[in-house]
Amino acid sequence: MNVTVRGRARHHRTVTFDAEHNAVLLIEQRLLPHEFKIVAMPDFHATAGAIRDMIVRGAGAIGATAAYGLAQGARAFRGRGLTQFCRHTETVYQTLKAARPTAVDPVNAMNQVRAAMSAGETVAEQQILALAAAEEFAQHDVQHCEAIGRHGAGLIRSGMNVLTHCNAGWLAFVDTGSATAPLYAAQAQGRQFHVYCDETRPRSQGATLTAWELAQQKISHQIIADNAAGHLMQRGRIDLVIVGSDRTLGRTGEVANKIGTYAKAVLARRHGIPFYVAIPLSTIDWKTKRGFDIPIEERDADEVLGAWGITQRGQREYVRVANPGSGAYNPGFDVTPAELITGIITPAGIMKPEELWRRRQELVK
Amino acid sequence: MNVTVRGRARHHRTVTFDAEHNAVLLIEQRLLPHEFKIVAMPDFHATAGAIRDMIVRGAGAIGATAAYGLAQGARAFRGRGLTQFCRHTETVYQTLKAARPTAVDPVNAMNQVRAAMSAGETVAEQQILALAAAEEFAQHDVQHCEAIGRHGAGLIRSGMNVLTHCNAGWLAFVDTGSATAPLYAAQAQGRQFHVYCDETRPRSQGATLTAWELAQQKISHQIIADNAAGHLMQRGRIDLVIVGSDRTLGRTGEVANKIGTYAKAVLARRHGIPFYVAIPLSTIDWKTKRGFDIPIEERDADEVLGAWGITQRGQREYVRVANPGSGAYNPGFDVTPAELITGIITPAGIMKPEELWRRRQELVK
Repeated sequence: MNVTVRGRARHHRTVTFDAEHNAVLLIEQRLLPHEFKIVAMPDFHATAGAIRDMIVRGAGAIGATAAYGLAQGARAFRGRGLTQFCRHTETVYQTLKAARPTAVDPVNAMNQVRAAMSAGETVAEQQILALAAAEEFAQHDVQHCEAIGRHGAGLIRSGMNVLTHCNAGWLAFVDTGSATAPLYAAQAQGRQFHVYCDETRPRSQGATLTAWELAQQKISHQIIADNAAGHLMQRGRIDLVIVGSDRTLGRTGEVANKIGTYAKAVLARRHGIPFYVAIPLSTIDWKTKRGFDIPIEERDADEVLGAWGITQRGQREYVRVANPGSGAYNPGFDVTPAELITGIITPAGIMKPEELWRRRQELVK
Repeated sequence: MNVTVRGRARHHRTVTFDAEHNAVLLIEQRLLPHEFKIVAMPDFHATAGAIRDMIVRGAGAIGATAAYGLAQGARAFRGRGLTQFCRHTETVYQTLKAARPTAVDPVNAMNQVRAAMSAGETVAEQQILALAAAEEFAQHDVQHCEAIGRHGAGLIRSGMNVLTHCNAGWLAFVDTGSATAPLYAAQAQGRQFHVYCDETRPRSQGATLTAWELAQQKISHQIIADNAAGHLMQRGRIDLVIVGSDRTLGRTGEVANKIGTYAKAVLARRHGIPFYVAIPLSTIDWKTKRGFDIPIEERDADEVLGAWGITQRGQREYVRVANPGSGAYNPGFDVTPAELITGIITPAGIMKPEELWRRRQELVK
């Protein structure tokens, strides 16, 4: 995506690799939207730390970071012989995996890198294959998002108002994003439209990350309180909803996504507004049988009880908003049933939720 | 309501009058939930300022404050003769009215005080009647809320989980509140239940005021992000929703209330959860023909773009959360249609929204 820093627009990916210095380069997402900074991870320990501490977040982005991290670790091997090398890469793999133990993307990405490496017969060959596989993983992530954009762009006509929730944007992937991909593709085709970004309490990814992305891309947008979407729909001011997903069930078409997604789907249905979910195929869970079985992460109460922001003196601070004597309940995700979803925008095309299972042979590959 | 300050519980009303010092006593609501402080307004200018600057807010509370303010102004008259006195009280009336020009409660309350005063034949008599009328207004506000509590308490059974939105509590009235009245009454009857408070972005009245009230009353409660209510309903964890209202249309039963109320009503309907609105009769608008005609206040974007809270150093500060280059759209209220409302809890009993118009003779009185 293009990012304007000190008045100059430049194309950036969220995750890249500096082969000369064997470093993983990341956008420091925790500083956004208040500062844009690219940081270099000099070794695989630092790369694992970046995943753990959420310098980088989002399915595709942490997948690519782990893939590059594995290649980085492999390339840093200074010992002798394949056996020692294998033991070393196993340590690298486990270190990166442990950084976000519940995430599936880093593991899937690293498995692809390992599979590619196994074709090499020497340490040097395997090191070359590792980086090539990581680059390929990142490139595929970009292509998948671009394909989502191509398929979804047709849903957006000039003059439309589009509602988004949370951030399934460029920052969550290597480039382009999932829920945002149709927006960027429609813009590239010259269409003009307006986006309402749910602020997405409690972590405010809509107000911070999605709004920042849209501002960088010069797409007309406004942030709204999560409470305001229903009123906007009532007044005919939302034409289309597009969200991302953390996990979509291949068997039922149910979609787990950031808390609050379900409410928007229910409201959209009431008002006859199309509700689309944009996902890379890696997000599809082919095993879990029903949405009720998806574990819903309960996050720290402090997220609900206060907010992070910038003070008037320009310092990043947490303020406690809520009554000091009160606690909070903070589920991170909810599950939207298939019947509320107009279509799922995938790199393989737009389909009804129930089509996923019918087309599983083609989609799993 | 009982408030515990430095370990001692005492009963407090939000608005009272100190006849000896001719002062209006108010809870400084802007400091809540972080500090409990009662401030004395020494003259009607100060009382008008307290309404304007939102030291006191909420329909019943500002009505009582204006009624006391008018009596306060009348009692401070130091001139001679009824003509001069009338001119003086007119100035007091206009000053208090101008403090919140769009609110109807202060005007209605002061009209009651003025009507009572007109029975007096001397300045001294009118001064006595003014204070008596203001006290009566405050007492009626308390009685109306208690009646709401009596009628609504039966809806709440032990073991229930109740969802609230915003603050239509004790702090918004002289005592007891509207939406909270059934909770307090059920508690007084020994029932045990749990309350989920929507934080109610952007101004967070649920996280600050309602949570504080419930903590004072020792009612089990947790704050949730506005996004979380749908998930809780899906998982069977909400049995009842009670909200307040800023304006209820007598002709249609439509309810204008804090932004986000409508979404909760839509979700409650989907899950077959009873959705009640608790109101004093003064909130009923008998003139406006349809909800679409209710003007929806657009509030300052900064409310959505950031949050007020307490820093780790204990200072009250505003932090900017959102992307600095992005704006916000901030409607303050939404309108819930009658078909989504299970019942309206009034001092005259619980009724269906469509009953309001049929019973208007009895309710207007």
